[in-house]
Amino acid sequence: MTETPLTDALARFAAAPLTGAERAQEVLKLSLLDWCAVATAGHNEPVAQAVRALAADEGGTPQAHAIGCDPLVPARMAALVNGTISHALDYDDTHFAHIGHPSVAVIPAALAMGERLGAIGAAVQEAALIGVEASIRVGQWLGRDHYQAGFHQTATAGAFGAGLAAGRLLGLDAGQLADVMGLLGTRASGLKSQFGTMGKPFNAGIAAANGVEAALLVAHGFDPRRAGLEDAQGFGPTHHGAGDMDALQGLGQIWLFEQVSHKFHACCHGLHAALEAVAELLPADPDGITSIEVATHPRWLTVCNIASPATGLEAKFSYAQVMALAALGYDTARLGTFTDALARDPQVKALRQKVRVTPDETLPETATRVRLTLNGEAREASHDLLTPLPLSTRAVKVRAKAEALLGQDKVRDLHGLIEKSAAPGEIGATLCKL
Amino acid sequence: MTETPLTDALARFAAAPLTGAERAQEVLKLSLLDWCAVATAGHNEPVAQAVRALAADEGGTPQAHAIGCDPLVPARMAALVNGTISHALDYDDTHFAHIGHPSVAVIPAALAMGERLGAIGAAVQEAALIGVEASIRVGQWLGRDHYQAGFHQTATAGAFGAGLAAGRLLGLDAGQLADVMGLLGTRASGLKSQFGTMGKPFNAGIAAANGVEAALLVAHGFDPRRAGLEDAQGFGPTHHGAGDMDALQGLGQIWLFEQVSHKFHACCHGLHAALEAVAELLPADPDGITSIEVATHPRWLTVCNIASPATGLEAKFSYAQVMALAALGYDTARLGTFTDALARDPQVKALRQKVRVTPDETLPETATRVRLTLNGEAREASHDLLTPLPLSTRAVKVRAKAEALLGQDKVRDLHGLIEKSAAPGEIGATLCKL
Repeated sequence: MTETPLTDALARFAAAPLTGAERAQEVLKLSLLDWCAVATAGHNEPVAQAVRALAADEGGTPQAHAIGCDPLVPARMAALVNGTISHALDYDDTHFAHIGHPSVAVIPAALAMGERLGAIGAAVQEAALIGVEASIRVGQWLGRDHYQAGFHQTATAGAFGAGLAAGRLLGLDAGQLADVMGLLGTRASGLKSQFGTMGKPFNAGIAAANGVEAALLVAHGFDPRRAGLEDAQGFGPTHHGAGDMDALQGLGQIWLFEQVSHKFHACCHGLHAALEAVAELLPADPDGITSIEVATHPRWLTVCNIASPATGLEAKFSYAQVMALAALGYDTARLGTFTDALARDPQVKALRQKVRVTPDETLPETATRVRLTLNGEAREASHDLLTPLPLSTRAVKVRAKAEALLGQDKVRDLHGLIEKSAAPGEIGATLCKL
Repeated sequence: MTETPLTDALARFAAAPLTGAERAQEVLKLSLLDWCAVATAGHNEPVAQAVRALAADEGGTPQAHAIGCDPLVPARMAALVNGTISHALDYDDTHFAHIGHPSVAVIPAALAMGERLGAIGAAVQEAALIGVEASIRVGQWLGRDHYQAGFHQTATAGAFGAGLAAGRLLGLDAGQLADVMGLLGTRASGLKSQFGTMGKPFNAGIAAANGVEAALLVAHGFDPRRAGLEDAQGFGPTHHGAGDMDALQGLGQIWLFEQVSHKFHACCHGLHAALEAVAELLPADPDGITSIEVATHPRWLTVCNIASPATGLEAKFSYAQVMALAALGYDTARLGTFTDALARDPQVKALRQKVRVTPDETLPETATRVRLTLNGEAREASHDLLTPLPLSTRAVKVRAKAEALLGQDKVRDLHGLIEKSAAPGEIGATLCKL
């Protein structure tokens, strides 16, 4: 037993060839497409403009694409910019095992370092998969108390995953990769107190940038305390970490990343199960609908149950609005479906008055039951977000979401690049063209 | 009472003109000279080479001097490089109120941002003074538990001081400066677990770089949670902070920075009081010395009491060695006094056998009593490191230390530049020439 069992195990994992990862690699391809879509869709958010201004101010060696930047920027800066921008809409994937957004922290680091090094696309996808898996494991090792205390796992656990992805691409050996993790012990940061501000997406950017920086420093001969994550005054113990070694269970055989959740609706996560359930019940013609009854866990009634939303933002937190929008055929994956105009639309307002939301403590937080009455006849459907989707279904839904955000032509291009494991520079160039 | 009383008070302080700071400004000039000396002396340490390699890799807009880098680098990178290099020898100043190294975190941020903006030297020195003072106040607000839990105040409290210094130079108003602090709540990091590795000096670099980055982002329109330092899940509460509002006492009238301690000997701090005491007793000719008795707090006996050091590194932790070196006229401010050769020198070895070290629990940790017997006659002197030095004495000692590190000519140049409040670019250019 070494002093750093978690660090050593994850470093060995990150230095080794992939085995038995075929399904996880398929999921990674979906997350990469999803990441490309949300990153591109967020490219003009105010926070994107602020980080791009920083990048333009610094300039530097043209190593990697940063969304909306011309020319290329250094890899660390590309990771900062792309990590931030891709989380700006809060529409990227989530892993509920540790509650973090693995893709926005790790994929930007892998793409930037891969492009800097001229790595092949397959190597970048492998590094990204290793990185997201490691970030989930670190997040589980840190545990729920770390999150509850105020730390944003996307930023904290994410940095370690980003560092391993970047370090693997640099060809670091297991000892050096352990050093990357040790160095990140003193560099990783990120708090939930920034939620609701530009600071939240920035947390993803700093995770990605910290990972790239630490990997480069170790490659340049930096010799840190390897135990910086795990020792008595390391990152874990000082940041309310549980140190749960069960986090390593099945490492290298079981890919926790396969359970990542993609967001398929551009609204509060509390509304998603209801949208999935009602989709099974909707008639071609909504005129005959006399009522839509939504039964959900009581916690959501104070989160996303605005009965008469007046704005697009309020619409994202309204069962009534999203049930009406879905019944009228609006695509709830599209950002443009959540507008002030549609919140005031007479047809939508008429239908949302037929929606009734009731609490049901017997339902888990992730499940919702919908009962729709059409021409006097009632039908019911339920959905639980934790129910695994067949991979093929997931692929269809991710692609539909991407098309809702970017249009069919652009998604066809991106999908083709990802399927053929195109080089990271090619993906970056395509994103910057969109 | 606002939600962020500490943040608001420090932001207003950082936006306002200086008043009654004449003495503090003199101390800042001493710290600036001291900083220049230790930074230049550390320029070839292995950690300096690692961070310079990172800077060379990234390149970027030539905004500021980084020690040993050619050409200039972006301000953020200059702060990272210079902060790291200046702490590499661990020979810079210390403030014991919060236990941190204020100059290495703040001065690099002020110089880099000042040079980037073409600011006048007086403005840079004012910003640096505001920054170091604010870092001590934040450090006191975080309190001793924060340090004991494992956080390196140089890095954590230092980042907030660096951010205020950089933001003041950018002309940010008090509200924007408060935003800089809020943003740093999610970005600041740094652990003591890196002590004894390259990670320790790097912590100073990340504080300086984080400060520059946060100030630039706010100037570019970044809108973070302003309460990111203070709110329930802000930096303080999540990082074992005490939230001690006494930290604001006398802000703007009393300058805590005036109590900063400069290191005058290139060895363990536990030996410094003994060196100051013995200096009062030393004869011109050491031949008649029959014994040197050192009485010190028992904690130091396990820290720096190697009786027969075999190497230069061990010599830095040996009462016997440093008493012998001082008696023989070696300059203990010089790095070159702590060599393997001198640890094996017959004359030094003979004299150090006459040194006896005894514990005395009645002495404070900062004090030592030395009894020197010369030709049968005993004399005694004591020194407490917390005894304030007259400013003029301090100036002489800082200059002598700088000369021991850099030589008289170079120190004359630097001293002249600092006295005339030369522009930061001129100071940077001089450092890079040394």
